[in-house]
Amino acid sequence: MKVTKGTKKLVDILSALPGIGPRQAIRLTFHLIRQGHGIQKELEDAIKDLGVAKICSQCFYIHENPGKLCDICLDAGRDHTTIAIVEKETDLISIENTGKYRGRYLIIGELGRGGVLEPDQKLKLKSLKTWIVKNHQGSVREIIIALNPNTQNDFVANQISNELRDLAGKITRLGVGIPSGGEIEFADDETLGGALKGRG
Amino acid sequence: MKVTKGTKKLVDILSALPGIGPRQAIRLTFHLIRQGHGIQKELEDAIKDLGVAKICSQCFYIHENPGKLCDICLDAGRDHTTIAIVEKETDLISIENTGKYRGRYLIIGELGRGGVLEPDQKLKLKSLKTWIVKNHQGSVREIIIALNPNTQNDFVANQISNELRDLAGKITRLGVGIPSGGEIEFADDETLGGALKGRG
Repeated sequence: MKVTKGTKKLVDILSALPGIGPRQAIRLTFHLIRQGHGIQKELEDAIKDLGVAKICSQCFYIHENPGKLCDICLDAGRDHTTIAIVEKETDLISIENTGKYRGRYLIIGELGRGGVLEPDQKLKLKSLKTWIVKNHQGSVREIIIALNPNTQNDFVANQISNELRDLAGKITRLGVGIPSGGEIEFADDETLGGALKGRG
Repeated sequence: MKVTKGTKKLVDILSALPGIGPRQAIRLTFHLIRQGHGIQKELEDAIKDLGVAKICSQCFYIHENPGKLCDICLDAGRDHTTIAIVEKETDLISIENTGKYRGRYLIIGELGRGGVLEPDQKLKLKSLKTWIVKNHQGSVREIIIALNPNTQNDFVANQISNELRDLAGKITRLGVGIPSGGEIEFADDETLGGALKGRG
């Protein structure tokens, strides 16, 4: 492939990002070259500005506040005795967008293939334990394990459940069911089973 | 969506890039935040280095040479009387990667929906005409219209063909046929018709 050195470097970096293949990396790079200096500068600056984003010491979501906590953890109007454990920031955003949840979160990070918690994920659970002991006399109302429903995550959810068993009035998981707009005919057994179980 | 200002800005810029949807933009942004300053700086620098890429005044491919021409246009070992007209840089790269083409190129830029050439695409064809008149006494050996084969591009190819008719010994298009590894059973009529026409 005959490209310039600078082009090659950006293509390599972009291909290493999640969800961007080598072909798309090339296409993006040429797009940036064609669009010229204006858009390149904008993108550079936007990346530079990321530098000021901080990670919340309690839930591990991002924030720009002077202290250590994000807007959600600082919000006194929210229910701090309900904690949703999510895999990633985008899951938190999806749940926030429903407008149906008023508790706080714990982002444990993306789960590996093996269905086993990484050491840093165990540390995050431990920090949640410490927080519950210190701030809520050792027990909160509810912990929702909000992981994608699949067999591997069932295993992870069990591990988390065992770790936190004594620290919450109840430990729940998100309901499995037919997606809104979906069709019963095309639902797999697990989904339909979940829908029956969660009927109401 | 509760994200920081810096995050929002990068998400907006990334979503505006071709092939990146809002969801992937969010995912990429959080990835960059999580990966931290090292990868952010690398990406910033790589984008900054794009600044030195220049566009060839003859074929409109990129280069970093001191003059106005790219490596392909400067290569005296190539056949400068055969010109492949391609839509975009990635098409040029794909053709180069076959190792089967030794002519030069003209990148006319991505075609719009209407099947009509934009003013700047007409200017590029005009610059090719001028070049042929000046360097090859008004006629080259062959012009290959190397556009993706589809109905809309047939129309564009006809326009280009009419424009350049008197300037080349022959004007051709890429062969339509069954892709290598593909199956006759699943080929549409146009493809199979092309394969029959191009048999040999």
